[in-house]
Amino acid sequence: MNSESSPLGEFDLIQRFFKTGGDEMRANSGETIALGIGDDCALLKPNPGEEIAITTDMLIEGRHFFADAHPGLLGRKALAVNLSDLAAMGAKPLGFTLAIALPKADTEWLEAFSKGMFAIANQYSCPLIGGDTTAGPLTISITAFGSTPSGKAIRRSGAKAGDDIWVSGTVGDARLTLAALRHEINLSAIELEEIEHRMHAPVPRIELGIKLRSIASAALDVSDGLLGDLKHILHQSQVGAEVFLDQLPKSASLQKQGEVIQNQFAARGGDDYEICFTAPTEHRNAINVISKELHLPITRIGRITANTRPTEILQLLNNGNLLSDIETAKLLKSFDHFAK
Amino acid sequence: MNSESSPLGEFDLIQRFFKTGGDEMRANSGETIALGIGDDCALLKPNPGEEIAITTDMLIEGRHFFADAHPGLLGRKALAVNLSDLAAMGAKPLGFTLAIALPKADTEWLEAFSKGMFAIANQYSCPLIGGDTTAGPLTISITAFGSTPSGKAIRRSGAKAGDDIWVSGTVGDARLTLAALRHEINLSAIELEEIEHRMHAPVPRIELGIKLRSIASAALDVSDGLLGDLKHILHQSQVGAEVFLDQLPKSASLQKQGEVIQNQFAARGGDDYEICFTAPTEHRNAINVISKELHLPITRIGRITANTRPTEILQLLNNGNLLSDIETAKLLKSFDHFAK
Repeated sequence: MNSESSPLGEFDLIQRFFKTGGDEMRANSGETIALGIGDDCALLKPNPGEEIAITTDMLIEGRHFFADAHPGLLGRKALAVNLSDLAAMGAKPLGFTLAIALPKADTEWLEAFSKGMFAIANQYSCPLIGGDTTAGPLTISITAFGSTPSGKAIRRSGAKAGDDIWVSGTVGDARLTLAALRHEINLSAIELEEIEHRMHAPVPRIELGIKLRSIASAALDVSDGLLGDLKHILHQSQVGAEVFLDQLPKSASLQKQGEVIQNQFAARGGDDYEICFTAPTEHRNAINVISKELHLPITRIGRITANTRPTEILQLLNNGNLLSDIETAKLLKSFDHFAK
Repeated sequence: MNSESSPLGEFDLIQRFFKTGGDEMRANSGETIALGIGDDCALLKPNPGEEIAITTDMLIEGRHFFADAHPGLLGRKALAVNLSDLAAMGAKPLGFTLAIALPKADTEWLEAFSKGMFAIANQYSCPLIGGDTTAGPLTISITAFGSTPSGKAIRRSGAKAGDDIWVSGTVGDARLTLAALRHEINLSAIELEEIEHRMHAPVPRIELGIKLRSIASAALDVSDGLLGDLKHILHQSQVGAEVFLDQLPKSASLQKQGEVIQNQFAARGGDDYEICFTAPTEHRNAINVISKELHLPITRIGRITANTRPTEILQLLNNGNLLSDIETAKLLKSFDHFAK
């Protein structure tokens, strides 16, 4: 390209770390990606009858990850959280764009970062199709694309009174890991080892999302905390909910903690990237079958109630006992970047 | 939404400044936008036979704009540069996503920023369909989407020996503005007034791009400098070029400068956001007609030559005289974020 630029000029960076890793995948993705990196735009060629799901996310050093974060894990997670949003809509990944600001062109860092990113991109057949590189405080902005058959995307607005509320996997371990790293809670090296992947390497529930297309009435991924996120479904569906606190799925590690920690971390820990969804009760059996097929726990944690009031109603039950408003309010506080 | 969050919590920010401004446009954009802000993903519903063009861009305070930049102009330009990429592919805008990091929730700044952004979004019927807001050093990352009939996108790789090279508008004024603001060159207040919009409020050549779909053999938008950008076409099309330096379209303001400044700013100033394209000679008349229809100068500035060598050949002619390799090399230096 430009012969005057340094060996790590912008175009070289794209070529060296980002273009090469994606070429094979773009080739494998067949007709859908008409044009990848190297032009003014990427081109997606949707199949007839498909809708394109689009999600975008920005990760900033010091806020979303530590300055010394392992670049490979960071590359993996940066893409995984976007794939998780696609999963929550029931979308199949098509590709992603990456805009990245870097303080300097650190080849070692970039190699590890791109390797981690392409590993998960490859796993979910989601090639890099476009990007932008610039100098600046370390910032990663990814926009990911997926496809769903027209009208089959799972929205937040479809929950109906009487539906069950479900969540995949377990919740609270990412928050427990953070607590251990912050020395708020003491965990042995072995205990930390068992759960830290839940914070560093979340698994986007793509297969689950696709299987839920004809089953779930509403869904989202749990990023800011289970109950806070559930409120988005309640708001958009104009319904209420009863949640069974004692039924929230927790790992063995979290179950070793006291009850308050267990409930707080599971109910509003955040960074779980599990799918919380609602479904008519007639699908209970189908959901259990999916759980077995995917070797993924899917737990019924509550039910949707009618709500005619303008504000959300979210009632918490612990072993059958209704929590007071004050107890509930404490648990409902969600993660908010600016409110802190 | 979350009743515990402060008046300027994340969700409020999205609601207050970004969701509202886009609602009307999403409604007007009819069937293409199935779902805007408020779910895990936005949904685009492409028409049959359409491809989706995608471009992404990251702007960082201190590098791409001054800290005291007018937020309204910044909002406008942040979207305009992405629309310019769509224009260069011949794509019609469909919508965009915005990921933004802000040091603090400054309502006055946000109001001006979103107003500037939505003004141009509205002008080109390009609604905001998704986003992410976070705290951090001021960073704006936009991904924009457009549509072209299948196979009609104008790529960089289609230039053929014998084609003319054209550029829209004038080039060099954004660089001249920057030079004046940096006190490298003295301009009177009146002179600056005449040209500074070329730096602060670039006009994406959307209408031109659409009209060029069946005419241009290759195209790109001039962001890093005319000749440096042209080299991307040469590289991807595996051709060479002769460029007539004395034919580069310059504003009256730039023409008042000395010849070296004129040539340097026009040839490699950058930030012009004009369309540089190639087309077979038989389209000269059609291009002149388009120029008249759009009230936009379109100037023939060179021709594509054959190139069988692996490196680009870009020959510059000034009033018919071939420039030496050294003179050419000086002019070819392009803007590169990391090479500086």
